Amino acid sequence: MTRGRFIAFEGGEGMGKSTQARMLAESLRESGLTVTLTREPGGTPGAEAIRELLLAPPGSGWIMEAEALLFAAARADHVAHSIRPALDSGGWVICDRFIDSSRAYQGVAGEMGDDAIMGLHAFGSAGLMPDLTIMIEAPQDIVSARLAERDGDNSDAIGGRTSAYHAAVNEAFRDLASREPARFAIVDGAGSIEDVHRRVLSEVARRLGASE
Amino acid sequence: MTRGRFIAFEGGEGMGKSTQARMLAESLRESGLTVTLTREPGGTPGAEAIRELLLAPPGSGWIMEAEALLFAAARADHVAHSIRPALDSGGWVICDRFIDSSRAYQGVAGEMGDDAIMGLHAFGSAGLMPDLTIMIEAPQDIVSARLAERDGDNSDAIGGRTSAYHAAVNEAFRDLASREPARFAIVDGAGSIEDVHRRVLSEVARRLGASE
Repeated sequence: MTRGRFIAFEGGEGMGKSTQARMLAESLRESGLTVTLTREPGGTPGAEAIRELLLAPPGSGWIMEAEALLFAAARADHVAHSIRPALDSGGWVICDRFIDSSRAYQGVAGEMGDDAIMGLHAFGSAGLMPDLTIMIEAPQDIVSARLAERDGDNSDAIGGRTSAYHAAVNEAFRDLASREPARFAIVDGAGSIEDVHRRVLSEVARRLGASE
Repeated sequence: MTRGRFIAFEGGEGMGKSTQARMLAESLRESGLTVTLTREPGGTPGAEAIRELLLAPPGSGWIMEAEALLFAAARADHVAHSIRPALDSGGWVICDRFIDSSRAYQGVAGEMGDDAIMGLHAFGSAGLMPDLTIMIEAPQDIVSARLAERDGDNSDAIGGRTSAYHAAVNEAFRDLASREPARFAIVDGAGSIEDVHRRVLSEVARRLGASE
């Protein structure tokens, strides 16, 4: 293999993305693959510094245009200094959120438009797309219980937006997934985290040929 | 007057932009105008935080795409939270550097291209352009002496680039000015700072009708 595979986890808050990304990375490592587990916004020192500005804005808060530009800048750094080198050396990359989060949060819910967001991505990161995007859909009662457990972790400048904003985000993710069924795997988030993990592994094996 | 005037100072390092911007602001205030004196990158709490990331990058340094996106994000914040409100309330705005610096430093010298830089500006700041851009051209021996006096102030991530890079920046500014003579006033930077200030005032009076 001369280029590794790139898997992103996407979806709204509280769907279990981070947990499932970590479990998938462990399983793929056990099967002998070299895996970079990373997240957005962040993943490199530069992008983590931008993450802090995004989640706790200095001043009176970013206008949506500035927010979209900052996400694109963080992603450009992350892709150039981490994701692309890892893929080019034959490793696998698992990323907790990627471009589809910008499309859903800033493009649709933030009303910047998909063309604008994809234009920034083309400029900043040469339009790199995941080979597979896993979207976990958990029932609303599970999501609500998880968010309540986080004790205010969700009170940052983006997680703390209105429920109407987050409903638009979730609807946007479903729409993106329906328009690109070859790239998106929708995974049922019901049951134990081990149940969900088995479903994730099954999708990865079926779509990317990784050994289970 | 329902909208104020927007004047930017542009040019390479050590041309005396900051000094002349400050002196012009003082003169216009003395003539009774309401003046906002500001600078880029920076000018608002959010944009000043981005400025720190630009001049002292965390990690291994920004790729040029990330740098251009960060400048556009800082400018979007600066325009939305400071420049446009000041103009809309009838005030004058004097800014030490604006979009033409991005065009020269990232667009030309950084090889991102003018269309890309102007595209980011259209997205982030609705393409706001100064009513007048003053470019001071100082003889190279004066510039070199000034830069030497700054005692390492120029050793940041952008000021510290190669002399070839800065030569390309200066050439780009001259090219921008020659393509938009109605917007650019090229001011001779020779002589005392008072000499230069009188030339600046004369250009502002002639082009924008401000009282001297």
